[in-house]
Amino acid sequence: MASSAIDELYSMGTGFTVVRYTVPGIKDIPVACKILFEDGECDIIMALGMPGGMPVDKMSAQIASTGIMEVQLEEKRHIIEVFVHEDEAKDDKELAWLSDRRAREHAINTYNLLFDPGKLTANAGAGLRQGFDDKGPAMDSNGYSHRH
Amino acid sequence: MASSAIDELYSMGTGFTVVRYTVPGIKDIPVACKILFEDGECDIIMALGMPGGMPVDKMSAQIASTGIMEVQLEEKRHIIEVFVHEDEAKDDKELAWLSDRRAREHAINTYNLLFDPGKLTANAGAGLRQGFDDKGPAMDSNGYSHRH
Amino acid sequence: MASSAIDELYSMGTGFTVVRYTVPGIKDIPVACKILFEDGECDIIMALGMPGGMPVDKMSAQIASTGIMEVQLEEKRHIIEVFVHEDEAKDDKELAWLSDRRAREHAINTYNLLFDPGKLTANAGAGLRQGFDDKGPAMDSNGYSHRH
Amino acid sequence: MASSAIDELYSMGTGFTVVRYTVPGIKDIPVACKILFEDGECDIIMALGMPGGMPVDKMSAQIASTGIMEVQLEEKRHIIEVFVHEDEAKDDKELAWLSDRRAREHAINTYNLLFDPGKLTANAGAGLRQGFDDKGPAMDSNGYSHRH
Amino acid sequence: MASSAIDELYSMGTGFTVVRYTVPGIKDIPVACKILFEDGECDIIMALGMPGGMPVDKMSAQIASTGIMEVQLEEKRHIIEVFVHEDEAKDDKELAWLSDRRAREHAINTYNLLFDPGKLTANAGAGLRQGFDDKGPAMDSNGYSHRH
Repeated sequence: MASSAIDELYSMGTGFTVVRYTVPGIKDIPVACKILFEDGECDIIMALGMPGGMPVDKMSAQIASTGIMEVQLEEKRHIIEVFVHEDEAKDDKELAWLSDRRAREHAINTYNLLFDPGKLTANAGAGLRQGFDDKGPAMDSNGYSHRH
Repeated sequence: MASSAIDELYSMGTGFTVVRYTVPGIKDIPVACKILFEDGECDIIMALGMPGGMPVDKMSAQIASTGIMEVQLEEKRHIIEVFVHEDEAKDDKELAWLSDRRAREHAINTYNLLFDPGKLTANAGAGLRQGFDDKGPAMDSNGYSHRH
Repeated sequence: MASSAIDELYSMGTGFTVVRYTVPGIKDIPVACKILFEDGECDIIMALGMPGGMPVDKMSAQIASTGIMEVQLEEKRHIIEVFVHEDEAKDDKELAWLSDRRAREHAINTYNLLFDPGKLTANAGAGLRQGFDDKGPAMDSNGYSHRH
Repeated sequence: MASSAIDELYSMGTGFTVVRYTVPGIKDIPVACKILFEDGECDIIMALGMPGGMPVDKMSAQIASTGIMEVQLEEKRHIIEVFVHEDEAKDDKELAWLSDRRAREHAINTYNLLFDPGKLTANAGAGLRQGFDDKGPAMDSNGYSHRH
Repeated sequence: MASSAIDELYSMGTGFTVVRYTVPGIKDIPVACKILFEDGECDIIMALGMPGGMPVDKMSAQIASTGIMEVQLEEKRHIIEVFVHEDEAKDDKELAWLSDRRAREHAINTYNLLFDPGKLTANAGAGLRQGFDDKGPAMDSNGYSHRH
């Protein structure tokens, strides 16, 4: 996932550096983010992980996400969490495809959040999803999109 | 949802400015709120989001809400959370209607909380709901309303 | 619920003032508590709310409670949470009765915690419940009460 | 439960004082612990409570535990949580027995943690449980105990 | 588990000291970690525990993990959590084997995180699991590994 994200980021622009920090498990991510913000001088972080499909893994993902939330608030900087749950895909092939696609789409969001936030407002309410096909905006009875 | 809320706010009064900050997902909302309070000089925030209907989305919503709670306590200012869960509505038409209505009703609450808090006390216990029909107050055996 | 609680408080003693702060939803309670402690100079707070019976409401109640916990720890002062869940009662009549009774019983606890903490120790282990009939203390095989 | 714990503590040694603080419900425990640490000059706390068996009680227990955790980290001192869930026992007699026994066993842990931590290391991995019969250590295929 | 971890650590290198702190239950771990970091001058901690298989044990594990997360963020140092849930193994023999193996594999991660972080990046995405057989990397349709 990291390679997909890095590849996508470099395809969007230049003038930034990517620092990579690998941890053994997803619950090790939050403190790594804190270290990257404070000692690695990062402005934004992509947190990539693949939680398993068992209940204990779901709990780990929740705790990891809660820690990621806390670091963002302490540092007042965004962390884009990119978790692909093993049970989101029907087989390994789809899992590989989904991981690559979600990492790339979140890389675009990460880039825009830092360098081009106006693009995000333009897409708000459009029902964009990271990985699977976009859901599309909700439509009202007159056929007008709920997106404004 | 943001347009509905903004439209409703401007219909209630003047003398305020709306600052809009769009993020890719609901878990990105809390740190955005913190930035808006500290760097955007906001007095109150409406946090609008539409969590999906899958268990993983419910977990994301919980983590987002927990972060929103934390920011409120750090900043000692209100954030009115306006989440419409995709599975609250039976189809896209109802979802669009619900999103619009809930955004507008919460916009009224937001306005009142800041400019006219007495109105909220007057409605306390009245069983008002945001979006669907109001449930009405609980009645006691004498037909008196439980609302005081 | 607020009126029941206030009525009960004033029936117990004098020399205190009640400040009321109404918010649109239960998740807005914690920051209101913080404002009441810091700006309203309150010594203790009763947090009254009626969460709905849907899963999303349960999650809201959990987040609200977590925030209420956090405010207590930051302020080192008690907040007596008085939540009546809509699905605790079989109909609106029982819900009205339960809300009134629980608010009153918690008002007594609130008063005692602040002005007469010894009374609480005397009741410890007695299985007192707020709202429904008291469960009574657990009995051991000799017929002695587990309450000491 | 408090009486069982106090009785056990005084049977183990002397040179300490027990301060008791009773609260109406388990969610009122954490801030009481904070007050006991900061104003009561306590070195360690036993937090005794009996959560009910309903889902709403389980949620309350979780929030109480989370607050107890937070206080420990803020104060850098241990709080030994002794919760007996009403649905752990098949009847009131067993509940009374379990409450007494668990309170006593945790009192021993509390005493050791403060005055004799080496005893805890000696028991690590022994599968000791508070209240019901000890589970015993896991055995490996050679009959050696997993306890070291 | 502690003995397995310590044995593995000493087999990997020298120049470090292991400090051991035993607590009665898993919810007592986080504050012990804080004490070890601040008073024991530890650079990294392995938190070893074996939560039971009942719902109440799962809740305890979640609260313990949340506290472990919080300590990491406060201290900006890693805690490698090594929990073996009793219901992960089919019998005591497997539980003993799993505990030993997971403790050893996490000991290797702990060592690398502190002394040789590059090795972790080399293994990222390889689907390594602690205890049971490694799952292996997800494969894409061309037979290429998703690992980069």
